[in-house]
Amino acid sequence: MQSCGIPIESTDVIRLGHGSGGKLTEQLVEQIFIPRIGNPILNALDDAALLQIGGSKLAFSTDSYVVKPLFFPGGDIGSLSVHGTINDLSMRMAEPLYLSAAFIIEEGFSIAELEKIVDSFAVAAREANVQVVAADTKVVNRGAGDGVYINTTGIGIIKVINPPSANKAKPGDSVIVSGDLGRHGISVLCLREGLDLETELQSDCASLNNLVLSLTPFENSLHCMRDLTRGGLSSALNEIAHASNVGIIINDSQIAINPAVKGACELLGLDPLYVACEGRFVCIVDSTIADRVVEALRINKLGCDAAIIGSVTTEHPGRVVSKTSIGGRRIVDKLSGDQLPRIC
Amino acid sequence: MQSCGIPIESTDVIRLGHGSGGKLTEQLVEQIFIPRIGNPILNALDDAALLQIGGSKLAFSTDSYVVKPLFFPGGDIGSLSVHGTINDLSMRMAEPLYLSAAFIIEEGFSIAELEKIVDSFAVAAREANVQVVAADTKVVNRGAGDGVYINTTGIGIIKVINPPSANKAKPGDSVIVSGDLGRHGISVLCLREGLDLETELQSDCASLNNLVLSLTPFENSLHCMRDLTRGGLSSALNEIAHASNVGIIINDSQIAINPAVKGACELLGLDPLYVACEGRFVCIVDSTIADRVVEALRINKLGCDAAIIGSVTTEHPGRVVSKTSIGGRRIVDKLSGDQLPRIC
Repeated sequence: MQSCGIPIESTDVIRLGHGSGGKLTEQLVEQIFIPRIGNPILNALDDAALLQIGGSKLAFSTDSYVVKPLFFPGGDIGSLSVHGTINDLSMRMAEPLYLSAAFIIEEGFSIAELEKIVDSFAVAAREANVQVVAADTKVVNRGAGDGVYINTTGIGIIKVINPPSANKAKPGDSVIVSGDLGRHGISVLCLREGLDLETELQSDCASLNNLVLSLTPFENSLHCMRDLTRGGLSSALNEIAHASNVGIIINDSQIAINPAVKGACELLGLDPLYVACEGRFVCIVDSTIADRVVEALRINKLGCDAAIIGSVTTEHPGRVVSKTSIGGRRIVDKLSGDQLPRIC
Repeated sequence: MQSCGIPIESTDVIRLGHGSGGKLTEQLVEQIFIPRIGNPILNALDDAALLQIGGSKLAFSTDSYVVKPLFFPGGDIGSLSVHGTINDLSMRMAEPLYLSAAFIIEEGFSIAELEKIVDSFAVAAREANVQVVAADTKVVNRGAGDGVYINTTGIGIIKVINPPSANKAKPGDSVIVSGDLGRHGISVLCLREGLDLETELQSDCASLNNLVLSLTPFENSLHCMRDLTRGGLSSALNEIAHASNVGIIINDSQIAINPAVKGACELLGLDPLYVACEGRFVCIVDSTIADRVVEALRINKLGCDAAIIGSVTTEHPGRVVSKTSIGGRRIVDKLSGDQLPRIC
């Protein structure tokens, strides 16, 4: 197991960074949760668990959404909470079937805003062709919440023989990203901090199930898939490098980043490799089919900027290294601080 | 569809009572959620959805837990969030298999308390023989939560041919309750309000899967099952009376209530029929096997106070009527106010 730095002490308290998807989150998971509730399925730390029930192979995934603000350019907590869980199921090549929806609502929250949120939840669920079959609503006192938090848990059916998993990357494989980075994180952050981007940047928030299922013909050569949420591309690649015990090299110059995202990142001192997306994924594929995978992704609007951005190597196992545009190399480590709390 | 009183206006705001499991919760579900995300499976409003996937019949249920305080006599939010979802699955005669666990933690929360909560979560999961296969942790800013909220979503497998459902009660059936009422609600409430009961009352919080599965030999005659959470026995029976379009008559004198619960209810002006349990259920069974069901329940410690408390009738369809100990009758309506917020 990868070292997570200094052990958490019982006298410590939870910090915002424990929810940022980087090193502190990993520390929380590996020191508090895994030792108590771990088992081989959970410990794989894949985007969705793989369950064999009867003759069916199912994917199962849960996420709570605490994004702030609730409404942002390109979506809101309702659509986000559908897209996010659909995407986790999709990362195992599962066809999403069913969702649960559990709302924690703060006393005093506006019914009109709740209606808007449930409306976009419903539209996103219809678009992803999933049924909401279980639901729950709880109300907490004023000041004990922040408007609305939503948990969605999804079940999908896996029809491919060998679904992708974080531990299947092989030296020689190609690294493909499905589009440009950081739109979601930057849209939410700029709105929250009152920064005006002077452009109409929108979150990339979208359900990736159809895009991913279009890759079914390549199923035997798709080794790993990870959607780029908290912690961004950096976390996803570090998790894969660690689980597969391989090195990953990426070329900064091949990674698409919208100029508005680039500008905002410079202004805010953020590295786009660490900024969350909600409609992008990385996949590690056999290099012989990499060009065809990119071509297949580009047919779909959500994959139109797909590109090969790197490769898997036997060097520096467990580490991600980036070749910079001026020819240098730097280690792309996991996020260590509190960069972007409450982004999803 | 049953009338839920005055329609919710878009200018309205969420009140604590919208989370109490009574009329306001019903109004929220029927006016905001069902019209937008409803479908035949969700609209059945059973404790767990019934899903047919491949050759398997699965139960699927979600609940978020926001109990305050987090630790109470007989349990804490960790054990409660396992028991609650296990019980929802059990109400469809499902054998629980898998759980997800999603924690929303407030910045500044003590790691030592989190460890205690995850410890009891783990113990409860082991006792119920379920694996936690998917998990998530989110952190919210100080003042945007209340320590810890937990969502659990469960999958169980149903092996009986006709699982119980709220719409299967038939005139002539017997109404059985598995034990005494109100321990959970009163334990939590007294602690929260600083009331000293002068007795060691503990929550009834427990997983009912083994108790319920011991009734498998009677499967064809078990028509409805409902665990007695928010809104208590009254809500459960009203939901069954409504879904099955039958009347239900109960005898107050046959309902077991611990003297400490009775005393606290009198002091606080509460009716025990409305107080939450977390380890009790009601079942509606063919009257010919009612005595044998009670006998089977009483073998198990969790069912040792099981009793027949009433019957199903063609009279007053959709309504629950109680025969009082002094020979009168009263309508037991759904909870209409904010009686017991954040009890689970």
